[in-house]
Amino acid sequence: MRYGVNYVPRRGWFHAWHDLDPAEIAEDLDAVVALGADHVRIFPLWPLLQPARTLIRPRAVQDVLTVVDLAGERGLGVVVDGLQGHLSGFDFLPTWVTQWRRRNIFTEPDVVEAQRQLLTTLAEAVSDRPAVIGMTVGNETGQFAGEWHPERYPATPAQMGEWLTGHLVALRSGDPGLQRVTVHSFDDDAWFADSCPVRPDHATALGDVTTVHSWVFGRAAATLGEAHPDLAYFADYLVQLAVAWSPDPNRKVWLQEIGAPQPSAGEPADFLRRSLDAVLDNPALWGVTWWCSHDVSPDLPDFRPLEYTLGLIDTEGVTKPIGEAFAEVGARIREGIEPRPRTRALVIPTGTTRQEMAPGGTLFARWVSERKEGPIGLVMGDRAGDATYLVTAGVTDLVEV
Amino acid sequence: MRYGVNYVPRRGWFHAWHDLDPAEIAEDLDAVVALGADHVRIFPLWPLLQPARTLIRPRAVQDVLTVVDLAGERGLGVVVDGLQGHLSGFDFLPTWVTQWRRRNIFTEPDVVEAQRQLLTTLAEAVSDRPAVIGMTVGNETGQFAGEWHPERYPATPAQMGEWLTGHLVALRSGDPGLQRVTVHSFDDDAWFADSCPVRPDHATALGDVTTVHSWVFGRAAATLGEAHPDLAYFADYLVQLAVAWSPDPNRKVWLQEIGAPQPSAGEPADFLRRSLDAVLDNPALWGVTWWCSHDVSPDLPDFRPLEYTLGLIDTEGVTKPIGEAFAEVGARIREGIEPRPRTRALVIPTGTTRQEMAPGGTLFARWVSERKEGPIGLVMGDRAGDATYLVTAGVTDLVEV
Repeated sequence: MRYGVNYVPRRGWFHAWHDLDPAEIAEDLDAVVALGADHVRIFPLWPLLQPARTLIRPRAVQDVLTVVDLAGERGLGVVVDGLQGHLSGFDFLPTWVTQWRRRNIFTEPDVVEAQRQLLTTLAEAVSDRPAVIGMTVGNETGQFAGEWHPERYPATPAQMGEWLTGHLVALRSGDPGLQRVTVHSFDDDAWFADSCPVRPDHATALGDVTTVHSWVFGRAAATLGEAHPDLAYFADYLVQLAVAWSPDPNRKVWLQEIGAPQPSAGEPADFLRRSLDAVLDNPALWGVTWWCSHDVSPDLPDFRPLEYTLGLIDTEGVTKPIGEAFAEVGARIREGIEPRPRTRALVIPTGTTRQEMAPGGTLFARWVSERKEGPIGLVMGDRAGDATYLVTAGVTDLVEV
Repeated sequence: MRYGVNYVPRRGWFHAWHDLDPAEIAEDLDAVVALGADHVRIFPLWPLLQPARTLIRPRAVQDVLTVVDLAGERGLGVVVDGLQGHLSGFDFLPTWVTQWRRRNIFTEPDVVEAQRQLLTTLAEAVSDRPAVIGMTVGNETGQFAGEWHPERYPATPAQMGEWLTGHLVALRSGDPGLQRVTVHSFDDDAWFADSCPVRPDHATALGDVTTVHSWVFGRAAATLGEAHPDLAYFADYLVQLAVAWSPDPNRKVWLQEIGAPQPSAGEPADFLRRSLDAVLDNPALWGVTWWCSHDVSPDLPDFRPLEYTLGLIDTEGVTKPIGEAFAEVGARIREGIEPRPRTRALVIPTGTTRQEMAPGGTLFARWVSERKEGPIGLVMGDRAGDATYLVTAGVTDLVEV
């Protein structure tokens, strides 16, 4: 069970990559180690790595290695995300795909090939770094295809599947022994928006584990209400959905992002404890990576308000109460948490749409109601009669909606 | 009379700013000096200077100073352009105004204020560098408001005028003795497209001199034909138009960009000689800045074909025949070129639209026809009866279309 943080540099946010200061990064990582994290997920910026289609900057790649090595020296594992891409409401795209040179990043062959060159370069650069425990195609890359995006790059589900598949191959080129966990990531539109070209089958079939990003500020808080105590079950719901969509009920799920956005999540330390309590004993869980290490400085404008206070550590470098809560949970994980198999499972009626699985639908309401009584999984209706599946999944008790 | 080049780094094009190598820049500038140029115009990149709205990177500003000082040590003057912005078909915009964070760069007060902070910072940083002979708001900033731009930021002419006026004030904040030439720049849509929010009165009223960018690959070559010998008069036509639009007929005009795009311009060295012959004796001319110093490497993809071969020096650092022609013309300038006042002037009929002044219209055709016989200026119809204006302009002979 992996337990770590998404690393946001304390000084300069991700703009810190422009002028990487190893001493400042080291100080940040020392603080992360002090919280009991065993890994960090890091986010280099695409325009800095690849300012022209055929120009991958050696120094930018070296900067990634510098952060990897600083983490490795401290005993931290590292997950390197490739294409950022999208971070906290900001999009980082190189000039050769934007504005006057606009090109579809999902469908134009030479653009896609260039991205794969970058991923291969990164993957091979870190291949001799055992600290690197994983790689992600990029952070929520599908956001660029989102219907709501003002300047989206349209992609069909088939195109998205091809894009992700090839990108995962590129990442594995630097990992011939398949020692690392290689994944892609996406926001919860993949689970809840019927129009989202990243589909649940992409989530559960591509990559070594299924990732979920649990953010309550959207649908969940709109449905349950701000700071509602049941919001702490949302992460476990996403994990269970990820299990249910997979043909292999034992495929692992990585809670790759979860944070305590204000005011949606309510009191942050309490939200962290209760959210993790709800999910840590889930046998499906590969690991948890909290968002995020450090608060964003109010000196940096233009973020949504909620983005400023997501850190475990404040802008002065002081651990916040939620950081102490994170450390306490980490101590319990190291002592060992007994898995509690989800032997009970709610059946998702066949034909339920993604939209109908979202908070606001009867499925979510019923699941939360059951979940408050104890652990409960989810099973797709068309598998509810499949005895082999149920045995493999460890499900003995089906509950109808 | 200033005679210089727009400086395009030989290695890495403008991406060279990411990893500025003073030795490489020095080598490039030595080659520019060897061509007899007396100045360079340089183009730092906005996203590198100001990655967040309130974050101006000291190192990026220092990089500008490094290039300024390397040029100054070689006796070159430097013109620093602030907001790039647009360069050779690529747009460089920071993440805080693009995509999901899209904000209008011309009209949103805090965005505009941030741009002015950057311009002020640059202007003040170079204030103790006598090598800096000028500053430009940015390279063809109006392109972002162009109707043809796929993701334009709309601005009315009034908004554009306010934007430019305030930005020029910001640039002058670093030049209290007004020693530098402070200007804005734009493409020829300002002269030829009725919809262009950068208007001729912005061109001729704002900034210390009027700039013109002379590119024949568009309207001129489409009208006259590729490689037509009369294309060599196009720069002089633009200079004359800039003179005609100004209430002050003695306002100077800077031919800030002129290049020999292939195949439109025909044989490059010949095009350079003939274009400069046509304009260098124009008393209105403040100076000429050729586009550009160095060819773009074919290793960098995605440019329009014409962009690769605009240099005076090739990608190996060897001076091209057009570079030798540039040097010859420079030697003649240093010997002194006798100005030839444009005592004859074609009258632009009152009510002529910008579109009607473009190549393709009768005005341009008639002017070219006259120009082949000898120097000829342009006078606005509503000034053709203004004796004071004509005396001031040195016009003694009006020609009706």
